[in-house]
Amino acid sequence: MRENSLRAIWAQRGSALGGWLTVPSAMSAEIMAHAGFDWVCVDMQHGMIDFSHLVPMLQGISSTDTVPLARVPRNEPGIIGKCLDAGAWGVIVPMVNSREEALEAVAACRYAPQGIRSYGPLRANYYAGFDYFTRANGEVTCIVMVETKIAVDRVEEIVSVPGVDAVYVGPADLSVTLGLAPAPDHDEPIFTDALDKVLDACRRHDVVPGIAGNSETAVKRLEQGFRFVEVASDARLLGIGAGLALEHVRPRTGSEAKSAYL
Amino acid sequence: MRENSLRAIWAQRGSALGGWLTVPSAMSAEIMAHAGFDWVCVDMQHGMIDFSHLVPMLQGISSTDTVPLARVPRNEPGIIGKCLDAGAWGVIVPMVNSREEALEAVAACRYAPQGIRSYGPLRANYYAGFDYFTRANGEVTCIVMVETKIAVDRVEEIVSVPGVDAVYVGPADLSVTLGLAPAPDHDEPIFTDALDKVLDACRRHDVVPGIAGNSETAVKRLEQGFRFVEVASDARLLGIGAGLALEHVRPRTGSEAKSAYL
Amino acid sequence: MRENSLRAIWAQRGSALGGWLTVPSAMSAEIMAHAGFDWVCVDMQHGMIDFSHLVPMLQGISSTDTVPLARVPRNEPGIIGKCLDAGAWGVIVPMVNSREEALEAVAACRYAPQGIRSYGPLRANYYAGFDYFTRANGEVTCIVMVETKIAVDRVEEIVSVPGVDAVYVGPADLSVTLGLAPAPDHDEPIFTDALDKVLDACRRHDVVPGIAGNSETAVKRLEQGFRFVEVASDARLLGIGAGLALEHVRPRTGSEAKSAYL
Amino acid sequence: MRENSLRAIWAQRGSALGGWLTVPSAMSAEIMAHAGFDWVCVDMQHGMIDFSHLVPMLQGISSTDTVPLARVPRNEPGIIGKCLDAGAWGVIVPMVNSREEALEAVAACRYAPQGIRSYGPLRANYYAGFDYFTRANGEVTCIVMVETKIAVDRVEEIVSVPGVDAVYVGPADLSVTLGLAPAPDHDEPIFTDALDKVLDACRRHDVVPGIAGNSETAVKRLEQGFRFVEVASDARLLGIGAGLALEHVRPRTGSEAKSAYL
Amino acid sequence: MRENSLRAIWAQRGSALGGWLTVPSAMSAEIMAHAGFDWVCVDMQHGMIDFSHLVPMLQGISSTDTVPLARVPRNEPGIIGKCLDAGAWGVIVPMVNSREEALEAVAACRYAPQGIRSYGPLRANYYAGFDYFTRANGEVTCIVMVETKIAVDRVEEIVSVPGVDAVYVGPADLSVTLGLAPAPDHDEPIFTDALDKVLDACRRHDVVPGIAGNSETAVKRLEQGFRFVEVASDARLLGIGAGLALEHVRPRTGSEAKSAYL
Amino acid sequence: MRENSLRAIWAQRGSALGGWLTVPSAMSAEIMAHAGFDWVCVDMQHGMIDFSHLVPMLQGISSTDTVPLARVPRNEPGIIGKCLDAGAWGVIVPMVNSREEALEAVAACRYAPQGIRSYGPLRANYYAGFDYFTRANGEVTCIVMVETKIAVDRVEEIVSVPGVDAVYVGPADLSVTLGLAPAPDHDEPIFTDALDKVLDACRRHDVVPGIAGNSETAVKRLEQGFRFVEVASDARLLGIGAGLALEHVRPRTGSEAKSAYL
Repeated sequence: MRENSLRAIWAQRGSALGGWLTVPSAMSAEIMAHAGFDWVCVDMQHGMIDFSHLVPMLQGISSTDTVPLARVPRNEPGIIGKCLDAGAWGVIVPMVNSREEALEAVAACRYAPQGIRSYGPLRANYYAGFDYFTRANGEVTCIVMVETKIAVDRVEEIVSVPGVDAVYVGPADLSVTLGLAPAPDHDEPIFTDALDKVLDACRRHDVVPGIAGNSETAVKRLEQGFRFVEVASDARLLGIGAGLALEHVRPRTGSEAKSAYL
Repeated sequence: MRENSLRAIWAQRGSALGGWLTVPSAMSAEIMAHAGFDWVCVDMQHGMIDFSHLVPMLQGISSTDTVPLARVPRNEPGIIGKCLDAGAWGVIVPMVNSREEALEAVAACRYAPQGIRSYGPLRANYYAGFDYFTRANGEVTCIVMVETKIAVDRVEEIVSVPGVDAVYVGPADLSVTLGLAPAPDHDEPIFTDALDKVLDACRRHDVVPGIAGNSETAVKRLEQGFRFVEVASDARLLGIGAGLALEHVRPRTGSEAKSAYL
Repeated sequence: MRENSLRAIWAQRGSALGGWLTVPSAMSAEIMAHAGFDWVCVDMQHGMIDFSHLVPMLQGISSTDTVPLARVPRNEPGIIGKCLDAGAWGVIVPMVNSREEALEAVAACRYAPQGIRSYGPLRANYYAGFDYFTRANGEVTCIVMVETKIAVDRVEEIVSVPGVDAVYVGPADLSVTLGLAPAPDHDEPIFTDALDKVLDACRRHDVVPGIAGNSETAVKRLEQGFRFVEVASDARLLGIGAGLALEHVRPRTGSEAKSAYL
Repeated sequence: MRENSLRAIWAQRGSALGGWLTVPSAMSAEIMAHAGFDWVCVDMQHGMIDFSHLVPMLQGISSTDTVPLARVPRNEPGIIGKCLDAGAWGVIVPMVNSREEALEAVAACRYAPQGIRSYGPLRANYYAGFDYFTRANGEVTCIVMVETKIAVDRVEEIVSVPGVDAVYVGPADLSVTLGLAPAPDHDEPIFTDALDKVLDACRRHDVVPGIAGNSETAVKRLEQGFRFVEVASDARLLGIGAGLALEHVRPRTGSEAKSAYL
Repeated sequence: MRENSLRAIWAQRGSALGGWLTVPSAMSAEIMAHAGFDWVCVDMQHGMIDFSHLVPMLQGISSTDTVPLARVPRNEPGIIGKCLDAGAWGVIVPMVNSREEALEAVAACRYAPQGIRSYGPLRANYYAGFDYFTRANGEVTCIVMVETKIAVDRVEEIVSVPGVDAVYVGPADLSVTLGLAPAPDHDEPIFTDALDKVLDACRRHDVVPGIAGNSETAVKRLEQGFRFVEVASDARLLGIGAGLALEHVRPRTGSEAKSAYL
Repeated sequence: MRENSLRAIWAQRGSALGGWLTVPSAMSAEIMAHAGFDWVCVDMQHGMIDFSHLVPMLQGISSTDTVPLARVPRNEPGIIGKCLDAGAWGVIVPMVNSREEALEAVAACRYAPQGIRSYGPLRANYYAGFDYFTRANGEVTCIVMVETKIAVDRVEEIVSVPGVDAVYVGPADLSVTLGLAPAPDHDEPIFTDALDKVLDACRRHDVVPGIAGNSETAVKRLEQGFRFVEVASDARLLGIGAGLALEHVRPRTGSEAKSAYL
């Protein structure tokens, strides 16, 4: 029997560090899951990933204790249910901009009477144990994304929805809707105030505040009080890491660099 | 019409830096190919990669100027031909331990009368241009691996085979067959002498010396005279990179690290 | 030209026995389709199956006379249309809880003027014959799931929607919404009354009553009047079958059993 | 940096000829993309194609200058965003029957403040260049399908939505909703009047008129003023082409033809 | 129970027309198999196709009466056995250049005592019937390629091997080994004499002569006496067909053609 | 750090019960691996399975303690090395008919100096632990198939090869080469004598005797002294299990059975 260890970390007021998976491969998922993250999230929204990739990726992750999550491409009960049936211990739901949308996200994650999730946890039974049904409503994590100006304005109503376990801020989308360039961080007050507002609402409603980013921003976010924090993504590790490796070696070749994509 | 730019680099006595692909994904291949490597190699020997992955990976690479190579799982003309037909500009053939095996590797890469390659360059035509056949024998790169004690002993007879364009040393296998632990580098004379012997034979026969490794060893190898040098692999970028990112952030969480795989 | 033989079975007041497919494999689909079922259903809701698996699974089924159906993950015309275009002879639509939802399900299955299905039966033409369009509205089967307390309460309005060919009861979800544990059967009157109510409504509106289950419950369901009945699923045949095989042999090994998942 | 060359063609009042992709294969996509079409469209509505196929198909296309488009299975921002993030230069949105639906399609294609597209152009960055975000709202093409009687009736309100770049008529669905057999062309005034009405509305609102068809109808459509015109599809090239090849040869075998599917 | 209809065609001195499959897709395979060919061959040598593609492709073909064959990438019993177990009714073995190699090809196709094929016809049982084993040695077709100068020189010894059912000439490889450009046909006596020699040897040993080509060469080959003749390939139908369609339409656009790959 | 528990079972003179995987699916593999088998074997010889399926199947198995093995399609070091690198704890090598072939099988499984295995245990490191290399030669299991008359005749020389850990008898192929019908068991002395001979040789050389079969034959085999025994296969569980379920229910339908494949 496996438990969703995110709940234990958060119960002890700890912070959970995560890895982001956008490459549709169970092998890269397995490598990332072994790196020591508390959680990894299979990104079906912006990653090049569909449900047909999710299942083997979850299998690759399942030989570790890292908690598998899935970001769904939309707030819709069909795809949320599929991800949970496949053995994700929780979902990250993008673009939740209102109390109603938060209610829908929660309902899709819970069996009746708390919600409308349909029964059939085929792989979840194998992953979590055949007592899954009796524990699922208590263990499955529902994480809603607050990533627009309007969502920040309404963050109070969103985090007050029972069953919202955590909020995940998307700084890039938040930036764009605030009129800034998409980036993991900004110094502009309009941006930092928004983060503060989310943190404050989470604190008052005992909802875990989370946020996307990288290993640099993660240090800052932990200090700010975020407790569900992205540290690295597969695509950036590959693209930026390869670029740094080449920068280290290229000057010794006497030839010029080929490109500078990253 | 595309040319195999490795030939131009080598003709100008330049060094070609490479990335190694072991994750069976066209998306990670495309990311790696954009990082600025001179070449990337799809590893069908030790990578989790089969021909069914090779084709989309080559397609992912083909939107860049990076030269695509394939390491075949064995020295056999069927699989060598398939990789070339799919649009690899060359193959790296493992475990070439004799002149006879080098002759076989070369023959598999060349159309008659230089070799026995069977005609049917389906995707190579689309990748390289429909004049592919007329150029293939001159452009396709045949790289043989010298990676055992016995191969080093016979390196002279191997590099003297006409059509062997480059040698690729596998330090890990070389280490093992020399009685050392598998590693990208060793200070033991038995190891360094072997590299010297390969470099010397290559120099005298005008064959390009190449070697596997990482961004640290690459600097050293370039100084030693290797001109076809691995700088990074997708699996190490992910595994080691994620570990470093976590090391950077974890101490700030107050919790202990989960694992230390890498 | 192929016909949907479910219609002939039902026209003769016969009962159609089915197999359930949750493993994303065209090989297991082909094996199941050869076993003698009247129909098999590719489960895209709770099975580990996406559209990318559905197409090869339908191809594996198509060398038999077994009728291929698909359970869609949600009541939405895009995915219903895709399944039918791929050659499913009908869809099972989950969580139909109202007359309006039944109307939407039917509309998605029929070309104008009876519905809003978009034209483009690419594989259906190859499967059913190039006169498919002229027959499709008459042959494609629209099966709606009645699987919640609320749906049973409204079963009359659901089955009275023209074009609803059959109802498929999901006993597990029905149990959960009735406050019972998810199971294929219960003796509680609240459960048995619900089945009676569905059967009665179907009889009066000449809609075929169907239900999920296994080979034990199937015998009972046929006696109760259900005429579209699940007999076995791939996952249970594997999991339970392997467990029984081991139980038969294990005591002879002197060692203890490893697990008892099922 | 790549640009969406459809915009340049249309800016010069030129016509863009396209190929249609329904076979879920990156190899057939690459072959089609090399044939000289101005654009190819990966059909996720009626093609046997899911997002998991789209990504490698786009990679196969990306080694050419042919503009890649995707037809989404439904007018929903989640799937539209995924296709654009994967590197499609535009989407064709089916069954747009009202101004409201056109507004939704446009919004899904544009970042704030013009729309609601979520940020995360993973592969689009690699395909189009890392300045993608700054150019995306101006370059991504939003093409709405006018393919029902009701849509033709409302074509004026549809094409007047800012951000609708082109209209794509689906003659088969239009035929069906007009009470005709599904076909690429009809002589009936009810059909030809509908095309005229679309052409006229497009002209007045400076929206590009487009239409599905084949190489015969394409000639006629160009004369009529359509400037975004399907010329061929992979499935028809295979099915009809193979049939014609056999017709040419079969009489010489003395045996009778096996079938006449197409 | 299905029979290998090639044997019936040949027993009646008929000619069998074939389609060639190089695109790794079960959908294109199904379309091609419905076109009316007597046989289709899945090309695992020069096609972009591996065993993982072969199985679904055979499933796509199996809903038709077209005989499925596989060209293996090499003359090796492991892969030949896998193709036959998957339900291919025969194999085409490339580069058979001697009596010994022909003996090996035949042995790989036959169960003891005629050969060394290993037992385990998993999918063949479903495709051909559960009496497959009793019929396999008599029905499975072993076709060896004579496609080099040396093979033509030794054609007599090759076709005299018991169990060689047919010879398949590869004109492109034959051309290359004869010093000509790779092409489906040549007028040079060195080429035409080679074909005559193969035809003559086949006639005297009652082995079916076959040859690759297209719909133009097929007419000529039938007249020459070949009875197992390629008429079309998927890749050429797509590439050439799309090019012709564009040639037909492009001049009406006022713009110039983009490319001329084919 | 994981150990190969087969070694512990055998060291205690226990018997290991196994499941056979022929369906190319990681989901069916995961279900089978959870059923309680001591080992499961991914069959790349007669299963519809290639290396591209092996890797995800091994990932599906890896969340259990069941030992993963692979049957390779041929006795060749390239494919044996790939399976071990992917994390199989051992290989079953078919058609080992001589001491030389047994030596080759063993060499392919061991690093120097005991063998010729090439270094690069990419996924094995993640599966078994990063000390894999130091333990691999001692833990990886090399199992050779004795499945022909000639192999039984030479069984003494085969089992005496150092490094052969177990023998696996293939009763079907053995039957065929003995002139019997392929079957898991026979009463003919020619067959029973062969089994006795293998058992006797194994006993004298302390090699584990193993054999294919089903849950009925397994009981008998354990009594005979076999200690590595197949109990069930995925394909038979599906095909036979579905048939039995239908037999149980069909008579109650009033309709006749559709087929009797199994």
